[in-house]
Order: sequence, then structure tokens, then C-alpha cells
Amino acid sequence: MKPFMDQDFLLKTETAKRLFHEYSEKLPLIDYHCHISPKEIYENRRYKNIAEVWLGGRNDDGTYFGDHYKWRVMRSNGVPEESVTGGEDPYKKFLAFAEALEMAIGNPMYHWCHLELKKYFGITTPLTTSTAKEIWDRTSEMLQNDEKLTVRGIIEQSSVKYIGTTDDPVDDLSWHEKIKADDSIKFMVCPSFRPDKAININKAGFTDYIGKLAKSVGKESLDSVKEILAALDERVDYFKAHGCRATDHGIDYVPFVKGTEEEVEAIYQKALKGEALTKEEIDKYQTAVLLHLGRKYAKENFVMEIHYSCTRNVNERMFKLEGSDTGFDMIAKSSCGDELAMFLSELDKTNELPKTIIFSLDHNDFNLIGTCMGAFQSEEIPSKIQMGAAWWFLDTKDGMEEQMRSLGNLGLLGNFVGMLTDSRSFLSYTRHDYFRRIMCNLIGKWVEDGEYPDNEESLKKIVEGISYYNAERYFGIK
Amino acid sequence: MKPFMDQDFLLKTETAKRLFHEYSEKLPLIDYHCHISPKEIYENRRYKNIAEVWLGGRNDDGTYFGDHYKWRVMRSNGVPEESVTGGEDPYKKFLAFAEALEMAIGNPMYHWCHLELKKYFGITTPLTTSTAKEIWDRTSEMLQNDEKLTVRGIIEQSSVKYIGTTDDPVDDLSWHEKIKADDSIKFMVCPSFRPDKAININKAGFTDYIGKLAKSVGKESLDSVKEILAALDERVDYFKAHGCRATDHGIDYVPFVKGTEEEVEAIYQKALKGEALTKEEIDKYQTAVLLHLGRKYAKENFVMEIHYSCTRNVNERMFKLEGSDTGFDMIAKSSCGDELAMFLSELDKTNELPKTIIFSLDHNDFNLIGTCMGAFQSEEIPSKIQMGAAWWFLDTKDGMEEQMRSLGNLGLLGNFVGMLTDSRSFLSYTRHDYFRRIMCNLIGKWVEDGEYPDNEESLKKIVEGISYYNAERYFGIK
Amino acid sequence: MKPFMDQDFLLKTETAKRLFHEYSEKLPLIDYHCHISPKEIYENRRYKNIAEVWLGGRNDDGTYFGDHYKWRVMRSNGVPEESVTGGEDPYKKFLAFAEALEMAIGNPMYHWCHLELKKYFGITTPLTTSTAKEIWDRTSEMLQNDEKLTVRGIIEQSSVKYIGTTDDPVDDLSWHEKIKADDSIKFMVCPSFRPDKAININKAGFTDYIGKLAKSVGKESLDSVKEILAALDERVDYFKAHGCRATDHGIDYVPFVKGTEEEVEAIYQKALKGEALTKEEIDKYQTAVLLHLGRKYAKENFVMEIHYSCTRNVNERMFKLEGSDTGFDMIAKSSCGDELAMFLSELDKTNELPKTIIFSLDHNDFNLIGTCMGAFQSEEIPSKIQMGAAWWFLDTKDGMEEQMRSLGNLGLLGNFVGMLTDSRSFLSYTRHDYFRRIMCNLIGKWVEDGEYPDNEESLKKIVEGISYYNAERYFGIK
Repeated sequence: MKPFMDQDFLLKTETAKRLFHEYSEKLPLIDYHCHISPKEIYENRRYKNIAEVWLGGRNDDGTYFGDHYKWRVMRSNGVPEESVTGGEDPYKKFLAFAEALEMAIGNPMYHWCHLELKKYFGITTPLTTSTAKEIWDRTSEMLQNDEKLTVRGIIEQSSVKYIGTTDDPVDDLSWHEKIKADDSIKFMVCPSFRPDKAININKAGFTDYIGKLAKSVGKESLDSVKEILAALDERVDYFKAHGCRATDHGIDYVPFVKGTEEEVEAIYQKALKGEALTKEEIDKYQTAVLLHLGRKYAKENFVMEIHYSCTRNVNERMFKLEGSDTGFDMIAKSSCGDELAMFLSELDKTNELPKTIIFSLDHNDFNLIGTCMGAFQSEEIPSKIQMGAAWWFLDTKDGMEEQMRSLGNLGLLGNFVGMLTDSRSFLSYTRHDYFRRIMCNLIGKWVEDGEYPDNEESLKKIVEGISYYNAERYFGIK
Repeated sequence: MKPFMDQDFLLKTETAKRLFHEYSEKLPLIDYHCHISPKEIYENRRYKNIAEVWLGGRNDDGTYFGDHYKWRVMRSNGVPEESVTGGEDPYKKFLAFAEALEMAIGNPMYHWCHLELKKYFGITTPLTTSTAKEIWDRTSEMLQNDEKLTVRGIIEQSSVKYIGTTDDPVDDLSWHEKIKADDSIKFMVCPSFRPDKAININKAGFTDYIGKLAKSVGKESLDSVKEILAALDERVDYFKAHGCRATDHGIDYVPFVKGTEEEVEAIYQKALKGEALTKEEIDKYQTAVLLHLGRKYAKENFVMEIHYSCTRNVNERMFKLEGSDTGFDMIAKSSCGDELAMFLSELDKTNELPKTIIFSLDHNDFNLIGTCMGAFQSEEIPSKIQMGAAWWFLDTKDGMEEQMRSLGNLGLLGNFVGMLTDSRSFLSYTRHDYFRRIMCNLIGKWVEDGEYPDNEESLKKIVEGISYYNAERYFGIK
Repeated sequence: MKPFMDQDFLLKTETAKRLFHEYSEKLPLIDYHCHISPKEIYENRRYKNIAEVWLGGRNDDGTYFGDHYKWRVMRSNGVPEESVTGGEDPYKKFLAFAEALEMAIGNPMYHWCHLELKKYFGITTPLTTSTAKEIWDRTSEMLQNDEKLTVRGIIEQSSVKYIGTTDDPVDDLSWHEKIKADDSIKFMVCPSFRPDKAININKAGFTDYIGKLAKSVGKESLDSVKEILAALDERVDYFKAHGCRATDHGIDYVPFVKGTEEEVEAIYQKALKGEALTKEEIDKYQTAVLLHLGRKYAKENFVMEIHYSCTRNVNERMFKLEGSDTGFDMIAKSSCGDELAMFLSELDKTNELPKTIIFSLDHNDFNLIGTCMGAFQSEEIPSKIQMGAAWWFLDTKDGMEEQMRSLGNLGLLGNFVGMLTDSRSFLSYTRHDYFRRIMCNLIGKWVEDGEYPDNEESLKKIVEGISYYNAERYFGIK
């Protein structure tokens, strides 16, 4: 029996161990997509206790911070909301989490938590209600006193080379400016351009948002689609000047319905008047804006990230109580397939297809994406179109392995840009460690099974590439 | 090489063996959903031979009894219908089945049959055309003479604590009453409420059925939807008084289209007149009835089981010849996803969501269900919303393992209510044994791979919970 | 560590090795569906170098020949099109391919190429940029001089017993006639009937094609659907007279919308006038033609092969440049399920359902197909309706294993007609070897895990059946 989570955790063969320890583990990491706050990096926030880091609390404006993955674990064990996002005593929350975690056998949360305890706190005792107090005390003491456990300390000890935050086009990026001006910060922190609110013409708050977008480019209002697109272009330029090189699009599904310029304009005017739009109208507006942005990204050498097949806020009661991003989302039954190809083809036919990473939240889409991307590769860069790493509900051992197998079967795994945390927590860099172990184990097994030659040079190139160098090349990080 | 189906069948690690033999194997079983006949239990039926138990025959009313799983195996081997459901000599049928079974490598049928031969008849010789005669003789002799091989004998030696039969709202439950009154029956036999026929407004026989439903509540007719709902409520109360605590809904897909009360009434009036309904009308009627029932179940603390993604009776020729449930069904390509969430949300927003178990016949839905349910958990009970065990065509080793991995990845496997037979045969309790082995093997492997601590207390709690105690708590069985 | 691709490649247990080496490996092979040219067989073509065999080139008419699987690998590594399908020097193309292949860890292409190098050239050195020159020289020398490396030589040394080519109904089959007349050709080469162009009423060139079909039956034109169907029937008879016993249908999805004779006729008349058709009209025409053909096939004892869930030519720019079958296709998100069953049922209800093999390019469909086919089996032949082997993007180790597990779970794996190459290359017979290893490994593992008895007689029957005898029986090859 392998001991629980020892140094060879998830590494089942000698080759896997060698690949991980000799090559992968030693490399810095590029976290090209996450949701952490540049403000907290700049201010070098310190957390009081493990409940605050893991389970969060309420910001001054009433919204929550914290990890909705963990909240789901607690709710699934019947923990009352008071002890999840409510005002319950932090230690009691932690205890309720420990009790739930025991039942989470087979859940990546079990691994992530214990990887974090081990890496950042040196704790190897499994967390249960019996060990919770001892773990609470030790982590509290360290969080409050250890220099390596401030936000910057955590980032530095995690060998993070690049952090891509997620930012709204209207953001003034002032925290990014402060970080850039601070010579003591050695790692890169760059904004990513996420214009979802300008695309979601069907969602509440759209017109208000367009007002903010106008303001961000010094205008009173944006009276036409042309003006929206010009404003977005201007903000892309602004982001680029602040080091941005990646974008993100969270869409329910990939739309592709082409409308004429006049049609799209009329749709926008309807939306401004608060009139209801048909699905076809929504698709036409979104298609037009996404195509425009795709072309702009290609021009600026930005990476376009597309995340789809998610339905958000499905519990109406809890959405009213707690708002978005509080753990009430699910995998959608997406029907898009051809639309994804049509979207890429439309950009490609005028040579305006940017580097693109496609993520679906539905693992049933992996093979479809794997074959679609193969039709749009280019000599610009190896594997210009990428299948995104297993995302969100899929970033499990099974999900990651399935994604890499699918990519291996249908594309070139050796060119994969690898892992991102997509995280809201500073401790979650261990997910890169988790990913690298799973990747090395998969490759090591193929080698030991005689399915790929035991050629050190090739293996080093592949493993180091997926761990670090492919992303460095793809995102232009130097 | 492991011997064929020895005591450690499917148990590949020492930990798996220990968990199974020390904890799981010893516990009684709760078969909370099956299709066996309370009449046969009460009358303590005895079968003449293994062909009758396995392959069945014809009831007095011309309908068939028997196991359509096995009929499919025979038909897939080119066995003429005469030897499947027809009048062929029972031994010749059995011989044809033995010949087909040899080709069924990788099929759970191979395992189920041999588990049954081993457990109930002590036979460990694999069934082939060469061994068929010897096995026929021995099983016939035992079935005809052994007290442990009457229906009750089988149930008792299988340590069944609770049997949830499947019953129509119009059923008078008289056999359940007789069972209850018989002190010699120590195990619990409770009805489950399955009102499909009152919901299938689009299927032949709907109006006739409504007539029966009227009669069951002492009325001439049910002239409005309101009256249907009142009748169903009355039958729920009647079932509850007879020990019912679970319901079942077999639907092609989860509908969710809300109509006004007037609209739904008008749809029913159309149906009464025999007019054709649109899909939207059908969905509106079904949504209304399902929401009403969901609220009633919540009030009565019933468990709501939903089975979907099945298309029934797809072979028109054979359906005309043999009717329903004769082996001509298939997995449907369901498109529902958001509808499932909207249905749960609608009930949840007034705190009227009952305990719910969601089964899809499409394994591609496991992850979707796993994320959807996480948005509707509650402090009422750990994992109030459950992902149902791998069902029907999925209750294979691969299917069960995939379902448990999905649940493990996305929810709390430790709270899983576990297996049910969904069976039409009294010998099929070995499917619980099959499930428990697969579950212990999965967990044992995680432990031996260092992915969960080798903590006896936690493992015992989890394994015993999934085997028995979670279902006991969930269904309120004491 | 197992050495790379030794004689026991992919065979992990002693039983797997025994089953493969004792039974499977020794049998000839039936390649019942491929795209190789009967002309090249008759003319006994010789290739100049490995680049020509693997990467192809341009035919005299400007179209390409070669393996678009390999082109995708190259494009995914950023190789410019000039070195993929363009005029680049063949050795430089080969070098670019070698460089890309190194990154293709986990890709079946890696295995196929090395299996071909080993079997046909005796080369066991892995192909990299360092070994490329040596491999180039050796393969060139052998291709130009070795008698065993002409097209016929390759077929003979591969123990091919039967080749089913893919032919258009209008083809005069003259090359097949020449092959038949040539006594030195010992293997069977039979045409397969692929009438896609007569069915694709929605695609460019349809009316032109109908003109050709008319000509093939000695008519000026086909003025009604009735005449089209009569012409197709006549061509079926012609094909049958030339040894044909199988057909193929490549459709985006399985349509099933029944129209009246008059409706279908009107749709055809619209198409003749070049008017646009609705999706419903297209489906009606296609349904009518497919049903007619199905009945004709049943009468002639032809096998009907249906391939679906593919979207072709998704890259508009490259399609304009390079045309079809050049590597720009993808897996479609098909929504058909019930339609497949309705199609089979419609034929079955008049006892006119032919032997049918169903292939989907979407692995998510395996279980659906596995259950659908179970509803249409017959006493005519064991497993009359078959789930096709993992196809195209799925013919990977993972894909093949998943297909066989699905078939094993839901049908009778022992009756499976097994592998086909679907290939455009004469060296690709090693894919049968690849398949047989994966099959023997799967079965061997079940036996060693105690999940199927170690009964030599049964195992031999199953393994030899899947390798060869089932296809021989199914296609009537003697």
C-alpha cells in the first residue's frame, strides 16, 4: 500500500516518479487564468485563520469571498447555510467542513485540501473532526505570523512566474499599475480581458454596463454597436499597454448566427429600449461582437479563451439570497458543435483567427473539440488552437486524465499549454502540482507499458513543455 | 490469475477484500425499488425449474413474466422467439440461453447468472451447453424441494430487510395488507407510488386510466385537473397509511414548461375529447402534475425517484406481438438538463422540494446530474438530492464504477444511498453483492493508491453507509 | 518496464499473450470496408519512398492522395501547408512529420507508424529527426526493390483474404473485373455500394450526379424518384453480379421523416429546379431513399453499413483550397437516437431489415447504439444488427476498448464482426493487428481477473470469431 499522499502521490511507476521529480516539479508555474485579486497581491493580504482562506466570509459590500467548491461540499453534507456562508463562528465552520470532507472520498477537494495543508503548513495528518483543533491552531499561528504565508509569500514559495487575473474592460487596472511599479514584486501579474458583460445582451444589467463602458472611454453613452466595438477595441489597447495577452469568454454555448450590420444595430436598439429579444436576436448580437473581438485579438496577438457549457445560478431561491458565484451552477447540456467550427472558420477565412483555447464544462465534448481544433491549426505556432485543460467541475483526477487522453488521441499532447487554477484562493497553486503528477503518471505509464519509447530527450521535452515551456511560448512570457 | 468468481470476486486489493468481508458483506440489504410481485411473496411462490425463474413464461392473462435482460441476450445470439418468449420446451430454452451466455463475455448477465448459481444453488461450474444438463437437474431439484428456495426463503437467505415494490395509485394494496398481517414475514414489504399513467397524457389508455383513478377514490369520473390532483393526493395518503415512503417516475425526459391553471385545464379537456396534443401542451400538463406531486411528497416526507432518458417499445412489430417490458427499449438521446434544474428550483423556492433521487439511463448525464444536485442540497438530511445508482442498461461493472466516480468527483460518495435491483426476479439480490464488491474495490484501490487515508473508522463509516445505513436513514427504515 | 512495441505490444497478461499469439495473430484478415483503389491493386503499384506512402501527393487531376490523419498531425505541430500537401521536397516533408510525431505521445498515429515500420520494413528504431535519414534510406530502398512491397505484395504478406472497396453506384467496376480475371490474384477484392451522392439532395452537384446515374443505366435522365430508385436497384444488381455484399452510407445524422410518395416526388422536382429545400424536405427525401435501399439490401442479403455523426469540411478556407477528405472534418454533435430506431423498425415491421452495422463518430453514442440494436436482432444470424468498430477519430486504443466494453456490456461481444481499416493506405493493415491486440488484452484481463472462466474452448471460439470467423459468416465470404 502506498502511504497517503507521500512525495510520490499519484505517481504509480518509476518512470512517472522520475519524470515528475527530475523535470516537472522543478519548473516555475504560469497561472494564465485565475480570479484572484490584484489588490490583495499589492496589499500583501494576510489571513487570520484557515476558515478565512478556505471558507471565506463576507466583503464590506455584502458580497461573499471564498471557495464555492468547498461550500458545495458542506451543503452536500447537510451543513446549514449559517455555517457555510453565514455568520457562524469560524472554527465551527471549519469543524463542519472537516466532518463533510471525511465523506468526500474520491473528491478532488479531499486532495486539494491535504496538498495545501502539506505544502504550506507542513501538515500530513488527515483532517477529521478529531484532528481539526490541532490543525486549526497550527494553521492560525502560521497564517498570522509566517512571512511565507502572506499573499505574496504564498505566490513566491509556489514559484509562480506569471499570474493572469480576470478583469473587466471597464476596470482601470490601477492595482496592476501599482504592482508593476513595485520593484519588490518579482513575479508577473497581468490583466486578462473578459468582456462578458458587453456580450450578455440578454442578461440583467446590460444597458447599465454599456454606460460604464462608455465612461471608461470618456463618453456619455454608446449609441450604436459600432461605438460599442470601438470602445472595446480601445479597452483592448489599454489592456495591452498594461501587459495583457489573454482574454476570457464565459458563454452558455457558442453562438453562430450571422446578421447584417443593420440587423445587429436594430437588436441593440431594442435592448436599449428594454424590449425582449428572441434567441436568434441574442445569437446575432453575440456572434457579431465575438467575431469583432476575435479579429481584434488576432491583430494584437492575444489568446482568446472560450469557456462554455455552463448554466449558472440554477437555484432561484439561493440566487436571490446570495447572488452569483456562490456554488449554484451546473454543467449544461450544450448542443453546440458545428457552431464552434463555423465561428473559427469565419475568423480563419480572412486570416484573423487568434490563438484560441476552447474549454467545455461537459466532458462529453472533449473529443468534439479535439477534432474541431485539428481543422484550424496553423504554421504560426505549434497547436495554435488548444483544447483547454479540464475545467471547474472537471478538474478532477478523472477529468484531467480524460482530457489529456482525448487530446493525446486527437491532437499533439506534447504541445499542450497545460494547467490553470481558475482559482479564487491563493493556496490553490497546489492544483498545478496535482495536474503535473497526473500528467507525469499518464506519460510514465505509457512508457512503462511499452507504448512510447523510453527516450529521455523526448520525454523531457514533452514533460517540461506541458509543465511550463509551452505556456511560456504560447502566451509570450519572458 | 484470480480463479473465476471466487470469494474475492472483483476485489483486487487487500483493502478491498477487507472492506467487503469485514463490513459490507455482513449487512442486510434494502431493496428500495423493484418490480417483484407482493402476491408472489404472500403466496410464497415456488418455481419448477431454472428456466421458469430466469426466462419466465406467460401469465394466465397472456402477458409475459420473466427477465427481458436475458431475452435480449438470447435474441442477440439468433435464438428464435419461440425459444425466447414462446412455447418451446423449458429445458431447450435453457440450453439456448446457455449457448448465448457463452458469447456474453464482458456482459453483467454473465456475472449475475453465475452469482445466482453460486449463492442460491452452490454451483460453481460455469454454465455452457456441456454443463447445462447437470445444472438444470440440480437447480430443478432444489427449486422444487428446498425450503430456502421458495420466494420467501430466497428473500430471507438474502438478508433483505426492506423491499419497495412498484405500485399503481389505483392499486388496492391488498397483498401488502395481507403481508403486513402475516406475522411469519419478518422483512418489510412496502408499496412505492408510481403514477406514470396519470402523467402520460400523450399515451394510449390515458383517459381509461383516469377512469380507474376516479374509481379508486370512489368517484364516477375526474372532470378537471384539480380533481385528478386531489385524487392523487388521496392515493398518496392511502399509500402512506400502507407504509409507502418512496415514489417513482419513469419519464422519457424531464419536462419543464409552466402553464397557467386555465391552460393546463384546457389541455386536459382536449385530451378527454381525444384531440391530439402538441409537445408544449404535453409538457405543460406533465410539469403541472409533477410539481403538484413533488409538493405533496415533500409534505409527506416521501422520496421522489425520477428515471429518465429511455425510449420504450422501439420495435413496432415486436411491440404489437408482445407488448411492453419485453426487451425492446433503448437509451434515449435526452436533451434535458436545464429543465431538471428548473423543476427542482421551482419546488425548492417555496421549500417544497422532497428528497429526490435522479436516475438517467444515459451515462453521459452522470456529471450533469452530479453538478445539478449540488445546487439543491439542504440541512434536512445529508445529500438530500441523490444521483441514482447506475440503472438498467448501466448496472454493469463499468456503469456502476463510472457512476460512483462521477458522484465521488462531484458530490459526497460517503452519503450515497446505494444500490437497488429494479428487478423482476427474486434471485437477483446478488446484484447488491455485485454492487458492494465494485464499491469496495473502488474505495480499496483509492486507499491502496494513497489517495485516501487508511483510516479504519472513516472507511467503515463510508462502506457501511453506502451498503446499508445511508438508505436506512434516507428512507426512514427502522 | 515493457520494451517499446515488442512482440507483446499492448498485451499485458499471460492470457492476453496466449490468446493473441495462439489464435488471433495466425488468422487471415477481412477488411470489409476501406478506400483503397482497385486500379492500384490491379496495376500492382509501387511507391518510391515512405513520404509517398504516408504523406502522399497530388494526383494528375489536381486532387490529393495520402493520409489526412497524418496531415493533421503535421498541421498541429505548426508545419506549413507547403510541407503537408504542397510541393515541398519529400524527404523534408518526412522530416517535418518525424518532428511532429515525437509530440504525438498518446496518439494512435504514433503506434500505427511504428507498427508499419516494424512489420513491413523490419525497423524497430523509433522515428525522430535523428533517425529519420536512416529510416528514409532503408524504406526507400525496400519500397523500390522488394517484391513484398508492391501493393499486391503488401496485401499478400498481410494475409488479407477479402478487401471491400468503396464504390459509387455509377462506377463501371472495370478494375474489379480485371482483378477477377487475373488468376495471379488470390485474395478477394469486392466492391461496396455507396450511394451517398444519390441521397445528398441538399449538397452541391446532386442533379449532375443524377445525370450520371441515369447514364449508368442507359437513360437520358431520371425524371422521378421512382426512376431514381429503379436505377439504384439496377446498380445494386450490377454490383451484386460483381461480388458486392456490403454497402456504405455516410450521413451527417440518421434522418427519419416519412413523406407520402407525392411529397417526396415534389421535393425531388424542387431540387431539379435548383430550389432550396427545408430540413424537413431533405429528411423526407433521404428517409424515402434509405428505406427503399434498405429493403433492396434485405432482398439481396447485402450488409447495410451506416456511418454518422460527422461534420465535413468545416474549415471554409482550406476546403476551397484543397477540397474534401483533406483533414478538415470533425465529430458532430448529433441529436439522433429515436430516429435510428424508427428507421430500423420501419424496415423490420415488414421483415425487410437487412443485416446492419451502425457506426457513430461520437463515442457518447456507443451505449445508445448498443441498446438500440438489441431491439432488432433476429434468428437469421447471430447479432444481425452490429455496433460498428470504433471508427476514424475513435480508432484509438481508448476508443476501441470503449467500443468493445460498451458492446460487451450491452450485447454479445463474442459475435462481433470486428475491425475494418476504413483506410486509404496499403500499409495500414497493421490496424487489424492493433485491434486484435487490444481485443485480446481486454479479454485476457477479464480472464485473469476472474471475470470470465479460463475455458480454452470458449476463449478460442470468441477470439477467433472476433478476429475472423464472425466477419466471414456475416459477409458470406468463402
